[in-house]
Amino acid sequence: MPWIEYVGLLGAFLSAITFIPQVIKAWQTKSVGDLSLMMLLIVFSSVIVWLVYGFYLHLMPVIIANSIIFFLSLLLLYFKFTFKK
Amino acid sequence: MPWIEYVGLLGAFLSAITFIPQVIKAWQTKSVGDLSLMMLLIVFSSVIVWLVYGFYLHLMPVIIANSIIFFLSLLLLYFKFTFKK
Repeated sequence: MPWIEYVGLLGAFLSAITFIPQVIKAWQTKSVGDLSLMMLLIVFSSVIVWLVYGFYLHLMPVIIANSIIFFLSLLLLYFKFTFKK
Repeated sequence: MPWIEYVGLLGAFLSAITFIPQVIKAWQTKSVGDLSLMMLLIVFSSVIVWLVYGFYLHLMPVIIANSIIFFLSLLLLYFKFTFKK
């Protein structure tokens, strides 16, 4: 595998775990007031689009990263509505 | 251009604008306590990695989207340290 593909995999890995600390923080504090709902909705929409792209072009890193982000952004959306003051 | 490339462009566009509503919200409320610093640091790191990937493979949508996210995540990091209680 050419080195640049490892760079792509690292990027996909970092993108995939982006929202893990945010999910943990939100879960611990039960506070999500400062999180932008619009941001979460855009993340969720972009994930759907990237999944179409990834599945069609059989891009495994794109599929795996966005499947994880799909799940995490759904969780954050759930928190956003559940923890709302 | 094949239709799937438009899907990729749409994904890149959505990813690029992801943090715009969060920047606006943070700027208006001056409150970023619920934002995970670790999330922002991961976003910033992933952007650097994606920029290397994009520049090396001449992927314009990757370069443009991540240049925008680079700027926005820098802003959010600045807010995170400036607005900190």
